Amino acid sequence: MSIEEKLNFKTLEWHSNHLKLIDQTLLPDKLEYIECRETNDFVQAIKKLVVRGAPAIGCTAAYGIALAAKKGENLEQTANVLKNARPTAVNLAWAVERMMKLTSTEAGGPEALEQEAIAIHNEDAEMCRRMGKNGDKLIKDDCRILTHCNAGALATGGIGTALAVIYTAKFGGKNISVWVDETRPILQGARLTAWELGRAGVPHTLICDNMAASLIGNNCVDCVITGADRIAANYDVANKIGTYNLAVLCQYHKIPFYVAAPSSTFDFECPNGQSIIIENRADKEITAVKGQVIAPKGVNVFNPAFDVTPHELVTAIITEKETIRPV
Amino acid sequence: MSIEEKLNFKTLEWHSNHLKLIDQTLLPDKLEYIECRETNDFVQAIKKLVVRGAPAIGCTAAYGIALAAKKGENLEQTANVLKNARPTAVNLAWAVERMMKLTSTEAGGPEALEQEAIAIHNEDAEMCRRMGKNGDKLIKDDCRILTHCNAGALATGGIGTALAVIYTAKFGGKNISVWVDETRPILQGARLTAWELGRAGVPHTLICDNMAASLIGNNCVDCVITGADRIAANYDVANKIGTYNLAVLCQYHKIPFYVAAPSSTFDFECPNGQSIIIENRADKEITAVKGQVIAPKGVNVFNPAFDVTPHELVTAIITEKETIRPV
Repeated sequence: MSIEEKLNFKTLEWHSNHLKLIDQTLLPDKLEYIECRETNDFVQAIKKLVVRGAPAIGCTAAYGIALAAKKGENLEQTANVLKNARPTAVNLAWAVERMMKLTSTEAGGPEALEQEAIAIHNEDAEMCRRMGKNGDKLIKDDCRILTHCNAGALATGGIGTALAVIYTAKFGGKNISVWVDETRPILQGARLTAWELGRAGVPHTLICDNMAASLIGNNCVDCVITGADRIAANYDVANKIGTYNLAVLCQYHKIPFYVAAPSSTFDFECPNGQSIIIENRADKEITAVKGQVIAPKGVNVFNPAFDVTPHELVTAIITEKETIRPV
Repeated sequence: MSIEEKLNFKTLEWHSNHLKLIDQTLLPDKLEYIECRETNDFVQAIKKLVVRGAPAIGCTAAYGIALAAKKGENLEQTANVLKNARPTAVNLAWAVERMMKLTSTEAGGPEALEQEAIAIHNEDAEMCRRMGKNGDKLIKDDCRILTHCNAGALATGGIGTALAVIYTAKFGGKNISVWVDETRPILQGARLTAWELGRAGVPHTLICDNMAASLIGNNCVDCVITGADRIAANYDVANKIGTYNLAVLCQYHKIPFYVAAPSSTFDFECPNGQSIIIENRADKEITAVKGQVIAPKGVNVFNPAFDVTPHELVTAIITEKETIRPV
């Protein structure tokens, strides 16, 4: 049985006239799906985090263009709104541009565009498998891994990026346990990573983000693995807010800090981390949890969705091709 | 007008036959009070975090013994249940022991015990004022201070410990702004510190705990000030989970990490941080927020309430007497 089959869920599934997505805003309470049939469905799904994770967003946008082409819509316009749905994830722009490049050729009809979107999705799944295998080489038996956010099957068209490494190590027979950062404010760790790992049968323990330091300080963590949303030409890494914190902790405590990300995450036009645009999101993500208000009304809030980890703190970047050691 | 008056609320107020406490579990939504009239009211108030913060807990327990004495109850038993209500805060045991010492003397009647509890409370308020003055010397104009948890007026019988420094600097005319860590899982920062600072008119911005690193890395923080729950003989500091994280970040980024705590927080029988008992609290503090479940059912959780910061990471400990520099 492949790792995909062992996970027993599909983040995105193409049905020729619609894209079926797990509604990740409802996890872990309910496993429900939404169907994207109009461009606006795709845009809203990306904006509202129904689908999230840079590779999964890329696949989603590709299918969005394929479907618009089938319906004879204005593809420039479609590409534009999809690309602007979220600013930081480079895969989104990458996938949209790859699709649009095809439209400018003679072979760029609706059928070819559909095949291209499927190819992007299949390639993504294959990249995940390869990242898993490359990363597995860095993982020893009895490894206690800490991960942040969700860089799993729910974030990709395959078995994940950071979690691909964990799944490959675990299903290859290693004894693996995982510390799951809950990942405020959106709680992707508590809601998504804990759900995924539970479904896959990987032993894991949920913690609040601020507990990682004391676990690392008490020698309870052997390495940290995260995904990435964008990697600059000098290997600075933009990823979910809190990633930089972990990288500093790893450096201070002398344990490895690994990033797992497909090649499409690299933005060689971006010279370094300082040039990466960081999306600031709504105050209410912090001031309320599931509609329950937890802070004084009108409080001033700062809510950056990502941070930048300078390359000198990154032990290795695991890609589908190679493992890069930036230092 | 004194700083106490400027704050315009009273965390604990003695009324000769009961202790009136702000019910901090209801903040910031509602400012409501509970009245403790039986020993069990005091124990439950401490256990359920109606009152929290080491100095405020100490004052509460002292009044609990005073009231039990007035009612002719078994004081040994009262002392015992109060002392065991929470294990980590040393002020609780300290206040209980100070009260019990008096009962063993001839002068230890109910009236003397009531005066002793009032004295503990007044001394605490005075200690806060002095900590504020001592700490203020370390704060420059235009200082951007990050604080964690609530070490404020809500945590003491006075104007706070860490926040006493902030209030003294601010009301003494300095331009001060505060980054407030929300402080998962109980969210004392979001619920209590943001409420207090808002009420006092101190400019502040709420963030998630995992955002502090990137703010510090981007030179947006000049120093971190926290309180302490217990300080060992070698100056290792036990405080709210997440404090150690901040101390590492300060060290790495070369900004000062200050702890403000009264002398009663020092436990000279405790040789170092490793000997401090860390309370593990209920899973549901992490898996649910205000009753809303945010993690998969049955997920494995680790929920330590405190961590230990080794003294070599502490720039200064601000007490009511002196400012200690452990390194």
